[in-house]
Amino acid sequence: MNEAFDVVDVIRTKRDRAHLSAAQIDWVVDAYTRGVVADEQMSALAMAILLNGMSRGEISRWTHAMIASGERMDFSGLSRPTADKHSTGGVGDKITLPLAPLVAVFGVAVPQLSGRGLGHTGGTLDKLESIPGWRAGLSNDEIVGQLEDVGAVICAAGAGLAPADKKLYALRDVTGTVEAIPLIASSIMSKKIAEGTGALVLDVKVGSGAFMKDAAQARELARTMVELGTDAGVRTVALLTDMSVPLGRTAGNALEVRESVEVLDGGGPADVVDLTVALAVEMLDAAGRPTGADEVRAALGDGRAMDVWRRMITAQGGDPDAELPVARHTEQVRARRDGVLGELDAYAVGVAAWRLGAGRSRKEDPVQAGAGVEIHVRPGEQVAAGQAVMTLHTDTPERFPRALEALDDAWQVAPAGTAVGQRPVVLDRIH
Amino acid sequence: MNEAFDVVDVIRTKRDRAHLSAAQIDWVVDAYTRGVVADEQMSALAMAILLNGMSRGEISRWTHAMIASGERMDFSGLSRPTADKHSTGGVGDKITLPLAPLVAVFGVAVPQLSGRGLGHTGGTLDKLESIPGWRAGLSNDEIVGQLEDVGAVICAAGAGLAPADKKLYALRDVTGTVEAIPLIASSIMSKKIAEGTGALVLDVKVGSGAFMKDAAQARELARTMVELGTDAGVRTVALLTDMSVPLGRTAGNALEVRESVEVLDGGGPADVVDLTVALAVEMLDAAGRPTGADEVRAALGDGRAMDVWRRMITAQGGDPDAELPVARHTEQVRARRDGVLGELDAYAVGVAAWRLGAGRSRKEDPVQAGAGVEIHVRPGEQVAAGQAVMTLHTDTPERFPRALEALDDAWQVAPAGTAVGQRPVVLDRIH
Repeated sequence: MNEAFDVVDVIRTKRDRAHLSAAQIDWVVDAYTRGVVADEQMSALAMAILLNGMSRGEISRWTHAMIASGERMDFSGLSRPTADKHSTGGVGDKITLPLAPLVAVFGVAVPQLSGRGLGHTGGTLDKLESIPGWRAGLSNDEIVGQLEDVGAVICAAGAGLAPADKKLYALRDVTGTVEAIPLIASSIMSKKIAEGTGALVLDVKVGSGAFMKDAAQARELARTMVELGTDAGVRTVALLTDMSVPLGRTAGNALEVRESVEVLDGGGPADVVDLTVALAVEMLDAAGRPTGADEVRAALGDGRAMDVWRRMITAQGGDPDAELPVARHTEQVRARRDGVLGELDAYAVGVAAWRLGAGRSRKEDPVQAGAGVEIHVRPGEQVAAGQAVMTLHTDTPERFPRALEALDDAWQVAPAGTAVGQRPVVLDRIH
Repeated sequence: MNEAFDVVDVIRTKRDRAHLSAAQIDWVVDAYTRGVVADEQMSALAMAILLNGMSRGEISRWTHAMIASGERMDFSGLSRPTADKHSTGGVGDKITLPLAPLVAVFGVAVPQLSGRGLGHTGGTLDKLESIPGWRAGLSNDEIVGQLEDVGAVICAAGAGLAPADKKLYALRDVTGTVEAIPLIASSIMSKKIAEGTGALVLDVKVGSGAFMKDAAQARELARTMVELGTDAGVRTVALLTDMSVPLGRTAGNALEVRESVEVLDGGGPADVVDLTVALAVEMLDAAGRPTGADEVRAALGDGRAMDVWRRMITAQGGDPDAELPVARHTEQVRARRDGVLGELDAYAVGVAAWRLGAGRSRKEDPVQAGAGVEIHVRPGEQVAAGQAVMTLHTDTPERFPRALEALDDAWQVAPAGTAVGQRPVVLDRIH
């Protein structure tokens, strides 16, 4: 077969800091998907992109080429507008669980096609799979049907969406080329655009527990993704949110489902509630149904969001009243003196939860539904000597030592009366 | 098996512009040779090295690790010192053929382990294989024996020398990572140091027909290689030589052997003779047998170099008196007006010879012994309208059109009396 380009010429173009043409990008993404461009060629190109960057036009074309590698979903036949949310991943980030039903309350359908966790951040599907009977895999027809009937669906993204991205992501993971903003942005946005949502709100995390440790980088990623969404006709907005401390008081699958149900029941930690409401307001606004924060918050207290949650879980085979799995072993992490909790490092808590069995190192690893970290004292709160700051949960107690090790320098107790600065959850808005 | 390092950490180190440690380098080169580090990981690292560079210490360790991947030859048992020459490759560069016997005349043994040609530059072994009966493959014992008996051997480098380099070179070729000075320098020097020569003279070409088109880059490559050789205890010096015009009057396998024999017989083109003598003087000096240029030049006229040549060819099964192959078809390239030849582009002549069948595109391609370009008029020489400037040779006349096309803009005739600047062959010396 005659190929339109020589792959070494394409690699050299980016290596030598020139722009890739639209035709080069279309060809190289397609040829990689077909296996004509080999892994070792694409990884060299990915490294050149990481080090030399891409223009807005190149990123947009690259995203388009990845979308073109697979199918596109179409929700235009639905009776209501659609809005989706994507988070770049954080520790204790269970926001999708209360958020999807909450938005659906206000007549906007939420097609939340999600992934599984890898490393120190949890995956939405892993969390929901701790609910007995619940299944992540739905056909396209089931997705559309559930959006029409219930208004919200959280399920696995089908293999048909952006297969080029799937292949490229696995390659980047083993070649040190994950941290390239053009490639991160196009990876996320190709799936979200192919998914067919009309509006999209991005939750770009920044801080120790986030993929982006640095605010300037997080802001650049957010801006790049907002541009990509806008260029593709998706109404897109991004919130830059804090991930230096875990979100809420739990990190782990069933533990986070339990906390999400508390939020849907009008309770739950203030930071989780505040971020859920803030994102819901943005999604409703982007979907053309602007709604005030107080009105949105009311739906968490009066049972409307809980009602959609129960119908959403039931529609996917889950029992919303079932007991959630509980880990067989627990261990307490206790304060050694009186005072106020000075900090609690999100990354360390994420690693501890992962080591307890809540996360996976390879995508084929199983996860424990009950494993994770429960946080009893958050930064700024008082603590007494001997009091439990955290409880660790696992089915396999031989995991405790390495989890405890991760937490060694993750928190400290300051003298009572010390003022501990509280960062707001939402740091900025990019649109 | 437990590995000492995580390859993604090693890639990230160089990607993030830090220095690779000696242990990281040793591990990654060894693990790549063992197949534990995959091609797509090494190509990402190679691209990071190309774009972010390496320190002198890193290049030296990388070279050392490639040497350690295979066997090392040992000529310390010989009764005379050894000196080798390496050229970065040029058009019409047959210098090795007269040079090895010439140096041997003065009591310095020349173990010239060579390669085959790829692309527009010819390979020394391809040239010698046009001599009926001559064989390139010798055992290590045969090499040592011939060095003792004859004083010079030109043969194929065994697969046992620096196997890591062999694997890495093939990878770089298809991933746009050939043009990295640290990797070029370590590739060349790992083989030359493993080969066990005591002294080494590098002929670093610069100009259109060379790998390095630019003098600053060629100088950096030369300096890097001289440092590597010196650090490894090999007395190393480099000449920077011109490759904007082909060397001599022939480019092609048997054509170049014929020209080399003319040089060994006291004749031949002045530029070929001058460069042969200059390199011989450097090799003798580096090997501790300093000899004046006039004395060296005399050995080309009085039959001593020819005598070593005949014994060297005979020892490897060749017949020095055999008729050399002649191509079945020729075509003349003629001047359309009177004047003086203004230029003759080395790269274009190299591509023409390659297209006529003298070179190969893939390493498994055969070459034609008789194919190539014969140059009748060199820059600065007078030419009359209708006179042949070049003769093209091939066994397969369907190759003429594309060879002629390569030569389209490669030469021009200036009005008679135009002064054409002559570049010296040796541009600089780096030691």
